Amino acid sequence: MEIKIAKNILNANENIAEENRKLFAENNILAVNLMSSPGAGKTELLDATLDALNGGRAAVIEGDICTTLDSERLAHHNVPLVQVNTDTIGGACHLEASMIQSALDELDLESLDIIFIENVGNLVCPAEFDLGEDIAVSLLSTPEGADKPLKYPLMFKQCDVSILSKLDLAAPLGIDPGEMETNVKRINPDALILRLSAKTGDGMDRWIDLIKSRFEEKNA
Amino acid sequence: MEIKIAKNILNANENIAEENRKLFAENNILAVNLMSSPGAGKTELLDATLDALNGGRAAVIEGDICTTLDSERLAHHNVPLVQVNTDTIGGACHLEASMIQSALDELDLESLDIIFIENVGNLVCPAEFDLGEDIAVSLLSTPEGADKPLKYPLMFKQCDVSILSKLDLAAPLGIDPGEMETNVKRINPDALILRLSAKTGDGMDRWIDLIKSRFEEKNA
Repeated sequence: MEIKIAKNILNANENIAEENRKLFAENNILAVNLMSSPGAGKTELLDATLDALNGGRAAVIEGDICTTLDSERLAHHNVPLVQVNTDTIGGACHLEASMIQSALDELDLESLDIIFIENVGNLVCPAEFDLGEDIAVSLLSTPEGADKPLKYPLMFKQCDVSILSKLDLAAPLGIDPGEMETNVKRINPDALILRLSAKTGDGMDRWIDLIKSRFEEKNA
Repeated sequence: MEIKIAKNILNANENIAEENRKLFAENNILAVNLMSSPGAGKTELLDATLDALNGGRAAVIEGDICTTLDSERLAHHNVPLVQVNTDTIGGACHLEASMIQSALDELDLESLDIIFIENVGNLVCPAEFDLGEDIAVSLLSTPEGADKPLKYPLMFKQCDVSILSKLDLAAPLGIDPGEMETNVKRINPDALILRLSAKTGDGMDRWIDLIKSRFEEKNA
């Protein structure tokens, strides 16, 4: 019985995700959904990305259970920011397509090329909810350890792109990014894996190139 | 409607948690529920704890979505280990009281003083499910950042004990454990906060003392 209910919720979510996908396509917008454990560096990556894109007709939808701390960190970029706080709508541990649909009402879509969605920090539940995005991206930070793709496989299976973040900490912590990469590949052989440190800038160029080329492909 | 269903699930969970609590009391067992984000160091803490207790009539219930990797890490302690893999029962992102009830069937309760429960790595959902434990413990690792108690408040509100883990990384990462502690206290002024590094052993004595004294209090 519980499973039936869950399926209904997921079906309803999928329908709204399709509507979001259409809206992104009609407006030539690339939508990027960033997912990870708490503290894996999603906001830091966005901060560095908005710097590199120099605004670049981007907007951010910030998902958090509560607080506007992440939006405040990004406010200086002067890009449109919509904060979604799930505690005002039941305290969900993930974003759902309907929340993105509401957030899109707050944005002038014609003025945008890219929308970054920062999901709630959670390596499990967000992977179950399609938001209508073009690229699903997981971040796995080096301090979390190399075994995480094996222990939380759905996230790595669902994401086209896996970022190994906080690469600058790999050597000091004695962590092998190669082992993390091997474990991502065991779960998803087709995943594109990027190693980067938003702090030092190492590897950021490949990430920015990816976003730009995926935007161009979508609107070719 | 969704909220109603969730309430029914939580009520059912609470009833089974009460049964677990009774079973722990009847057998003079202290039950400890460890919760955190993925990779915050729950297994490493258990490893060091079992070393310090030298077995100590302890058992471990290992909660994971899948794999037996954590159980394998702890197998050398020769304490009873029960692995709960939630992907065999719907893929839940947290442990529920019913899973603990089933796991307890696998243990000889009369031979035990302490049961450690390692929850699924998730800073959100496990906090909603009482397992019948005596001590709810959250781990927050220094690389996750000081803002996490404010962004994921339920976990820190529900836990009697908050451990700031991976303390050895605070200085090299330029993270202020004092700020993390202040943020935990803002959410839960009564929380007992322990700073420790399971790797270096720093702070482990206070943690072990806490377990021993809570065991003695329960059975006084």
